[in-house]
Amino acid sequence: MNSDPRALRLNGWGYADTVYPLDDRPYAWPHLAARLGVSPRARWAAADPAAIAIRSSRLSGAQLRELTSIVGEDNLRTDSAARLACSQGKSYVDLVRLRLGQVTNPTDGVAYPRDETQIRSLLYWAGANDVAVVPFGGGTSVVGGVEPRGERPHVALSLARLDQMLSLDRRANLARLQAGMLGPQVEAALAAEGYTLGHFPQSFEFSTLGGWIATRSAGQASMRYGRIEDMVASMRMVTPAGVIETHLSPATATGPSLLQMLIGSEGSYGVIVDATLRVRPRAAVSDGRGLVFHDFDQGAEAVRAITQNEMPVSVLRLSDTEETAMNLALRTRHSGVRALTERFAQAWLRASGHTPIGGSVMIALVEGELGQVRRQVAALEAIARRHGAASLGGGPARSWSRERFRAPYLRDTLMDHGILVDTVETATPWGNLLALHGNVEQALREALGERSLVMAHISHAYPDGASLYFTFLAPIERGHELGQWERVKSAATERILGAGGTLSHHHGIGADHARWLGRQTGEAGLAALRGAKAALDPSGILNPGKLFQSEGV
Amino acid sequence: MNSDPRALRLNGWGYADTVYPLDDRPYAWPHLAARLGVSPRARWAAADPAAIAIRSSRLSGAQLRELTSIVGEDNLRTDSAARLACSQGKSYVDLVRLRLGQVTNPTDGVAYPRDETQIRSLLYWAGANDVAVVPFGGGTSVVGGVEPRGERPHVALSLARLDQMLSLDRRANLARLQAGMLGPQVEAALAAEGYTLGHFPQSFEFSTLGGWIATRSAGQASMRYGRIEDMVASMRMVTPAGVIETHLSPATATGPSLLQMLIGSEGSYGVIVDATLRVRPRAAVSDGRGLVFHDFDQGAEAVRAITQNEMPVSVLRLSDTEETAMNLALRTRHSGVRALTERFAQAWLRASGHTPIGGSVMIALVEGELGQVRRQVAALEAIARRHGAASLGGGPARSWSRERFRAPYLRDTLMDHGILVDTVETATPWGNLLALHGNVEQALREALGERSLVMAHISHAYPDGASLYFTFLAPIERGHELGQWERVKSAATERILGAGGTLSHHHGIGADHARWLGRQTGEAGLAALRGAKAALDPSGILNPGKLFQSEGV
Repeated sequence: MNSDPRALRLNGWGYADTVYPLDDRPYAWPHLAARLGVSPRARWAAADPAAIAIRSSRLSGAQLRELTSIVGEDNLRTDSAARLACSQGKSYVDLVRLRLGQVTNPTDGVAYPRDETQIRSLLYWAGANDVAVVPFGGGTSVVGGVEPRGERPHVALSLARLDQMLSLDRRANLARLQAGMLGPQVEAALAAEGYTLGHFPQSFEFSTLGGWIATRSAGQASMRYGRIEDMVASMRMVTPAGVIETHLSPATATGPSLLQMLIGSEGSYGVIVDATLRVRPRAAVSDGRGLVFHDFDQGAEAVRAITQNEMPVSVLRLSDTEETAMNLALRTRHSGVRALTERFAQAWLRASGHTPIGGSVMIALVEGELGQVRRQVAALEAIARRHGAASLGGGPARSWSRERFRAPYLRDTLMDHGILVDTVETATPWGNLLALHGNVEQALREALGERSLVMAHISHAYPDGASLYFTFLAPIERGHELGQWERVKSAATERILGAGGTLSHHHGIGADHARWLGRQTGEAGLAALRGAKAALDPSGILNPGKLFQSEGV
Repeated sequence: MNSDPRALRLNGWGYADTVYPLDDRPYAWPHLAARLGVSPRARWAAADPAAIAIRSSRLSGAQLRELTSIVGEDNLRTDSAARLACSQGKSYVDLVRLRLGQVTNPTDGVAYPRDETQIRSLLYWAGANDVAVVPFGGGTSVVGGVEPRGERPHVALSLARLDQMLSLDRRANLARLQAGMLGPQVEAALAAEGYTLGHFPQSFEFSTLGGWIATRSAGQASMRYGRIEDMVASMRMVTPAGVIETHLSPATATGPSLLQMLIGSEGSYGVIVDATLRVRPRAAVSDGRGLVFHDFDQGAEAVRAITQNEMPVSVLRLSDTEETAMNLALRTRHSGVRALTERFAQAWLRASGHTPIGGSVMIALVEGELGQVRRQVAALEAIARRHGAASLGGGPARSWSRERFRAPYLRDTLMDHGILVDTVETATPWGNLLALHGNVEQALREALGERSLVMAHISHAYPDGASLYFTFLAPIERGHELGQWERVKSAATERILGAGGTLSHHHGIGADHARWLGRQTGEAGLAALRGAKAALDPSGILNPGKLFQSEGV
């Protein structure tokens, strides 16, 4: 279990003691006020989390005794605090509901099994009692992946006690890790042996290995380390039909990939207990650059050139002009040498015809041996220059690295001021990228209205295409918070699918995207996924109402 | 369709006019005679293919008329020659049966649909008539992937008429190719546009894109270009439950990977009609080296070092000492400069303490830009030297490249002399590789007896492990040809699984491995694969008796 003693926030992101204030960012409110017409004095007070009243647990006394006999007395909780914490993820909708004090379908208990045997017993018990089970990792889903759905009683199955590295194979660079390990636990265990997994989603501090695998997560450094589905060499899953351990082999030609069927199954096929992952010796150094392009189109061409030339970057991100402007508006008040450097840089950019406010900023990071990294950064800068970029030096990359897990806290600050903030993300081949960007941007603006901010960045790039990660802001329609969100989400998702994007590049399906999944897989594809579900979970107790179970399957 | 006018051999490999003679290889028979006790004068005459009598087609007149109305008169054949050609693949067992003139369960007809609509109609018709359908690409399966199984009438669905490149996306480097394209057709279509797929399995000349995808094929250059499952960005499959086109996206987080469920489904889920593949601009140059190590263990360590240092090789193979000896025994009589060079090289190797006969030879190929390739070859040689290797220069790599598709013809030559030749292949993490090598070698020797040759090479290497490809020879037990093979195959496969290897690294499952698949997937895993099958092919008409249908499912 996480030994970090810091309290977590229920109705917002992360640590209760961490905030993202706008006070020392002098350009933030002018920018927000101009675009959204929102005053810094506007306030939306959240309901006191401790005062949120929820329905009593619907598990009977006999059921609770049986559950206790399975996991032990210390490992079952039915108190409001524990149940509230496991009744939703961290989506905008989740936070709105908590701010309104509305948790209408809380889970009925939280079990913390200590081992696989207890998980098997728990699933058997749940099947016999017609109780739904939601595997629960870090609870950071932003697509409704862990909330109770449907009428049956629910138990959240927390993986928190399965948090150990089981083995490390130094010859093959393979680590067997339990599913409940949080990001920092994974990296600490590996760092002690000189290794890294290199998986750094924005939720890194609060999400788990099992959650990453269950949702096909992609970390910010996926260009070097791969997406989670590339890292997993084998995994072990408890299903109601029995335990599946996929065969550990560097490659195989033994029929459909069972491993790639289980990865991304979002708790619908079974509970991931552990997995063997491809890890790497820690890189000696990392270095990075900020590069500013005249516009997003030119920047995107540079990203394409870099990936198609297989340049070994670990992080490569490109903000569109709106996001670049927002990031500039969010910079803190500088002083001393740093402010001076910035003034020089800006003067130079203006003199050389670059306008940072109208430009598109790329952040690139490279890892490896010192000499190698130097050569690769230089090669990368050369390609960027050929696409009209000016270098901003190493500062922006360093400051991005420092702040990389902070952005989600800003959402809470903005919500405190009555501002809707959410994201949608997708991916598409290169030839369709700019059209998709324009289409989704337009759909979001139309749905949000005049007073809105819509911005995007390429978060992950591949030789054949790239992702697009949109962030959008607008004043909250008080009293219609969820209806407003539903309208915007629906418009954006319809446009993503209509314009050829994938339904999700790395957030997953959950409850929020479930009704659209069939549009992407087709009827026969959905039937195949459900056929496997019927074989593994015939009573349908696992995480109902999510993924491919949109119609109450 | 293949416009190559050269006739193909029914009861052996490849072109009827191509052979692998041993006459100009002066060391071959001494080696074979010493190990196998077989005389070069021994002969096993094959039955005349034209004289093999097969059962009449079991399709009724009405059924033939209906089939004709679906695919057209020119696209349905029920003559013996066409049916014989599509009633087995190219496994040792297939060739034995044909040599004996025993084709007891021939297919009842061969249909050559011209488009997807015809394939849909054909599957619908087959379901209504309880006729089994075997999708047929190049027919090069060595694991019984295409033979008729079971009591129902069978139709072979040849993809030969779907042989066009449909589109090429030069921005994303994606090519949409029809499933029936043969290897040379794929490369010719792409070469005309400056591209390559880079997929070169040993069957390249005679196998199809659809077959590669259906069997999770890996080409010889997979270290640069990836295995087929890495290359496929999306695919289109006709199933009895409808058409599935997986969404085209560089990456996605939309549940279990439908794409990776369909890849490797060996005709059990549906018929692959086309796929969009990641292709690459053709490399400017390629260069290679032969390197000789003191033994297989040291060579394997060098392969591990090369892959874990992510050196950009395209081909990396390491023969064990037995295979190295065999390859030396198979060299042709040299003359002029080449013979002189070889004599100098051997003298130098002896002087420096290397014994090529006892050594283990690595073949490494690198592709890319000229300067880059030079640096990479030098770096690779440096790593090999640190592991005790001596360089044999560029000759062995060039001669391997020249001869890469020739080895299967040798099987026919040896069978003509009454010698059993077959292969088994597997893969495992690095820490288990040498133990697996020793174990399988021992099992094969035990099963084959004293008079046998067992050799192996690493054919594909990964940061976390490598494949092992075993070739074994022994005198055929005449009159018990199939029983002898069954005993050896069984012993080798049991040992592979017992010693932790995967059931297949790139040959697939077919009928020959089907009874062992559950050992690798477990019962619940097999149930999941069969659950998807039940959803896609409820009447079970597709390729029965293969893959996960070992018990007549």
